[in-house]
Amino acid sequence: PNRLPGNATHQVGVAGAVLDEVSGKVLVVQDRNKTVNAWKFPGGLSDPGEDIGATAVREVFEETGIKSEFQSLLSIRQQHKHPGAFGKSDMYIICRLKPLSYNINFCSQECLRCEWMDLKELAYTSNTTPITSRIAKLLFYGYREGFHNIDLTVRTFPAVYSGLFYSLYHKELPATYETPE
Amino acid sequence: PNRLPGNATHQVGVAGAVLDEVSGKVLVVQDRNKTVNAWKFPGGLSDPGEDIGATAVREVFEETGIKSEFQSLLSIRQQHKHPGAFGKSDMYIICRLKPLSYNINFCSQECLRCEWMDLKELAYTSNTTPITSRIAKLLFYGYREGFHNIDLTVRTFPAVYSGLFYSLYHKELPATYETPE
Repeated sequence: PNRLPGNATHQVGVAGAVLDEVSGKVLVVQDRNKTVNAWKFPGGLSDPGEDIGATAVREVFEETGIKSEFQSLLSIRQQHKHPGAFGKSDMYIICRLKPLSYNINFCSQECLRCEWMDLKELAYTSNTTPITSRIAKLLFYGYREGFHNIDLTVRTFPAVYSGLFYSLYHKELPATYETPE
Repeated sequence: PNRLPGNATHQVGVAGAVLDEVSGKVLVVQDRNKTVNAWKFPGGLSDPGEDIGATAVREVFEETGIKSEFQSLLSIRQQHKHPGAFGKSDMYIICRLKPLSYNINFCSQECLRCEWMDLKELAYTSNTTPITSRIAKLLFYGYREGFHNIDLTVRTFPAVYSGLFYSLYHKELPATYETPE
């Protein structure tokens, strides 16, 4: 029987694109037991109650040993799984992170390889997944022409009914729109 | 006991901001049995296996009788619920929609009122929720200065391993970045 309570229809995963703006290099991994030579961003599933940015930072550290901090949200991917799997779908979110350490110490159970790779190289290599390639191009665009072109920034709001807080991600709103002219 | 299979930790809801670009009016509702006078965008929970844009179009039609089509994704909200509720969280996504019909025929079980409201009025009224107000300002910015400033557009990609397809949402990537220079 379908034991899903209420409407928890999605698992949520988060990947971190950790870009060192000084060198122009980005942190990439190759998974064990998957397609050979496919470079991708480290990441994994959210723990219950965990914020998107916190998942990205935790997963990057667990897989690669690199410490980082959340900068922005770049992209959302939705995929629907086979109807047999409780109709479960997944939402995968890619964040832009800033490195706080540089020495790789990767988890050999999860990763086959882990490197700092030139962002432009990742954007145009064939040794990657279609989505990693797309996001690498987007990140390269932001790196060249300003991250404001690609970033969704976060802001926290009080919820009206519950007293809890929301995190809201969208393109930066110019200050002139905060109040009526 | 926690009967959540695997990692389905989130419910996903979608709201639709239906903007008539000719009149500058946006479709808003007031929920029954909630805070008086709080205008908001119509929306509701995704059915299993349903795309984000399809949920927005369906929920807008069910609540208001207005037909519309998906334009872009504007914002993502994450909120964590009480740990007692299976640690369940929710992800709420706000889409920009274009109206295909204009005559309101709202669901009186869900809505107390439903109107086409001037977008600028919604952006700066106090009779709304903090998040609706924020998104109305963002939408007003896009309406004035170009929707490319606020839109996340969608593109579909083949999944590497499963043969299924992904929908990927992010800021538009200039064509010059599609191939190496």
